[in-house]
Amino acid sequence: MPARDPIAQPEQTWNRRRLRSTNERLLLDRLRAAGSASRAQLARETGLSKPTVSSALAALEEAGLVHEVGTHTPERGRMAVLYAPDPAAGYALGIDIGRSWLRVALAGLDGEVVARADVRNRARTSGALADLVVTTARQVIEGSGAGHDDVAHAVVGTPGVYDGERRRVRYAMHLPGWGRAGLFDRMRDELGIPLEVHNDANLAALGEYTYGVGAGSRLFAYILIGTGLGMGVVSEGRLFTGAHGGAGEIGFLPWPGRQKPETLEDAVSGVAVVESARAFGMSGQLTAKAVFDAARQGHPAAVRAVQLEGERIAHTVAAAAAVLDPDLVVLGGGVGHSVDLLLRPVRETLRALTPLRPKIAPSRLGEDAVLLGALATALGTARDVVFERRSGS
Amino acid sequence: MPARDPIAQPEQTWNRRRLRSTNERLLLDRLRAAGSASRAQLARETGLSKPTVSSALAALEEAGLVHEVGTHTPERGRMAVLYAPDPAAGYALGIDIGRSWLRVALAGLDGEVVARADVRNRARTSGALADLVVTTARQVIEGSGAGHDDVAHAVVGTPGVYDGERRRVRYAMHLPGWGRAGLFDRMRDELGIPLEVHNDANLAALGEYTYGVGAGSRLFAYILIGTGLGMGVVSEGRLFTGAHGGAGEIGFLPWPGRQKPETLEDAVSGVAVVESARAFGMSGQLTAKAVFDAARQGHPAAVRAVQLEGERIAHTVAAAAAVLDPDLVVLGGGVGHSVDLLLRPVRETLRALTPLRPKIAPSRLGEDAVLLGALATALGTARDVVFERRSGS
Repeated sequence: MPARDPIAQPEQTWNRRRLRSTNERLLLDRLRAAGSASRAQLARETGLSKPTVSSALAALEEAGLVHEVGTHTPERGRMAVLYAPDPAAGYALGIDIGRSWLRVALAGLDGEVVARADVRNRARTSGALADLVVTTARQVIEGSGAGHDDVAHAVVGTPGVYDGERRRVRYAMHLPGWGRAGLFDRMRDELGIPLEVHNDANLAALGEYTYGVGAGSRLFAYILIGTGLGMGVVSEGRLFTGAHGGAGEIGFLPWPGRQKPETLEDAVSGVAVVESARAFGMSGQLTAKAVFDAARQGHPAAVRAVQLEGERIAHTVAAAAAVLDPDLVVLGGGVGHSVDLLLRPVRETLRALTPLRPKIAPSRLGEDAVLLGALATALGTARDVVFERRSGS
Repeated sequence: MPARDPIAQPEQTWNRRRLRSTNERLLLDRLRAAGSASRAQLARETGLSKPTVSSALAALEEAGLVHEVGTHTPERGRMAVLYAPDPAAGYALGIDIGRSWLRVALAGLDGEVVARADVRNRARTSGALADLVVTTARQVIEGSGAGHDDVAHAVVGTPGVYDGERRRVRYAMHLPGWGRAGLFDRMRDELGIPLEVHNDANLAALGEYTYGVGAGSRLFAYILIGTGLGMGVVSEGRLFTGAHGGAGEIGFLPWPGRQKPETLEDAVSGVAVVESARAFGMSGQLTAKAVFDAARQGHPAAVRAVQLEGERIAHTVAAAAAVLDPDLVVLGGGVGHSVDLLLRPVRETLRALTPLRPKIAPSRLGEDAVLLGALATALGTARDVVFERRSGS
C-alpha cells in the first residue's frame, strides 16, 4: 500500500487554494455580521491563526472588498485597527412591478438602501411598463452615485409565474399584455445588468422571512392579498417554487362558494372586498381601503364584507395548512394591511373548518415586502458575484 | 506570509482518512449500481488508481461488505476477479400498518426482498395491533434466515402524523386507539431494532418515486385513496413533510360540496364511494371494489358514484396543483386501483376547475407502495449504518 494516496496529491493543491478563498469569504461574512472587527477579534471568533487572518485581510483590502474604518483601544492592550466590508464594493437592485405601483431600490452590499423610487404605474401597455421600469431603474442608479458597472445583480418581482424557457410571464391576469415574450429580456438588455425574475408573492415571502416576522420559521407561507392573490412558501430558509415555479398560485384554488366568482382570486382580492360591500348595500366610489375604514367605523355593510373576506381567506389558509403544514402563515399585501380586522373572522372560520391551524400573523413589512424580498435575493447573488469578481476566486 | 497555511495541517490528515473512507463508499456504491465489476472496470469508471481500488476493495472485503462473485475474461486480456456488494452484510425491515392489512418485508442491502408477510388486520385494540406488528416482524426475520442483529434499521408506515416529541400518532382516525402515546416505543423495544415512523402516504410517495412512475419527477405528489385520504410529496428526490410532518394531510381540505361529508377525506375515501353508490340506488353488502366492478359493467348507480368520486378527486388535485405545482400526480391506494375508471372524470373536472393541470397517472406499485417506500427508506439508513459499523469509519 503506498504511503501517500496518489489521488490525494491534486486534492491537496486544490485544497490549499480553496482554503485561502474559503478563509477570505469566512472573514468577509464574519465582518458583515459583526459590522466591524479587529484582526484579534476575527482570529478569536473564527479560530483562524493571526497570520492567516492578516494575509486574508490584506488580500480582501487589496480587492476593495474590505476597508479600515477606525481604531479600537481595549482597556488593556494596544490600539487595534478595525476592518469592515466596503458596502460600495458593489450594489444590488430590487424591483417590484405591481398593478398600481412600481418600486425600485438600490442597496450596497451591506443591504442598506442608498436610493429608491416609488412610481405610480400608469402604463397602458406592457411595452410602456417595461420602459417605465428601465427609466426608473436608471434614475435610481444615477441618483445614488453608484457606478453603473458596480450594480452586480437585479431581481424583479412580478405577478404571475416566469417561464424562463419561453421568456415570458404566465397567469399575470392584472397586467394587460404582460404575458408577451421577450419583455424581461428587453429590460435586461436595456439596463445591461444581470436580471432575475420571480413571482411577487415568493419575493414577499423571502422579504418577510429575511427582515420581518417569518424569521426562524421552518415552513413559512406568506399570503399576498392585493389586486390579485398569491402565496409564497419558504421551506427551511429556501423558496419552495414547485416543478415549474407555480407553487403558491392559490388564486386558482377551487373554493366552496364557487358559483359567481369563478376563482378564489376573484373571491379574495381587494376587488372582491369592494364587490361584496356593494352587494351588502354600500355605494359610491369604493376602494378596498375605504371598505376597511368604514368597517372600522362600524358601517354594517362594510363589517359584513370584511367578515366574508375573512371567511374566504380562512379557506385559503386551511388549504395551505392541509397541503403544506406551515408553522406560520403571514397575511400581507394591500388587503393584508387591514389584518387587524381580518384576524378574528379568519381564526373563527378556521376553527370550524379544520384541526390544522397554523399560527397567523400580519406582515411586518407591509407594502414593502416584495421590494425587500427582491433586494434580499439580489443581494445574495451580488455578494457572491462581487466576491468572485474582485477576489478572482 | 507563511508558506504553509497553519490551519491546513490538521485538515490534511483528516482529509486523508476521509478520502480513504470516501473512496471505499464510492466503490461500494458503484458496485451496487453495476451489480458487479472487476478492479480494472472500477478504476476506469471512478477515476481512482488501481492501487487505490485494490486497497479499498481489500478493506471492504475484510469488513464483509464486498465479496468475490466470479471471474470475467475479456476478449483480449487476462482473467479478472469480479466483486459485488454482499447483500447479506445487513438487512432493512419495512412495515405497512393499514386498517385492513399489515404488511412486513425484509430486504438485503441490495434491496431484494428475502421474506415477506401479509396479514389481515383483525386487531380490535391498539395494543393488539402493536403485538401483531411485533409478532409478524419476528416471524419474517426468523423465516428469512437473517441474524436478528443484522437487521440494521426498520421503517413503519402508518396513517396519521407521527409526533416524535409526544411519542404518538395524530389524526389516524381509522385505527381506534392508535393515537396512544408509547405504542411505537413498545414495538421498538420489543423488536430491538432502531425503528422510524412515517406517514403512509409519504412512504407510498417515496416508494412510487424510487420504484414506480415517480422516477425523475421534480415535484411529485402521490394521493393515497383508501380507507382514508392522504398525500405524500417528493420534492427533488426528498420527502417534503412540512413544519410538523403534517404536509399532505389533505383529508382536512375544505371542499366545495361540504354540507354532509364534513371533510374531504369523508368525501373521497373508499367508504364515500360506497355511500354515494347507495345514495344513487345500489344495495346489498357493498365494498368500494364492488362499486367499481359494477361501474365497469355499466351499472348506472355505480357509474354515477364513480363519476362523483372522480370529481371529488379532481378537487384534491386542483388544490395540490395551486399550492405545490407538481409535475406529476399519482393516484394510488385501494381506490387508486381503479384509476382507469377515474382518470376521465378527474381530467374533465380539472379542465373546468383550473388552468393548472399536472400530469396524472395511476400508481405502478398499487397496494405495495407504502411497504416498498418503507423498505426504500429503511435501506437508505441501513446501508449507511452497516457501512459505518463494518468499515469503522
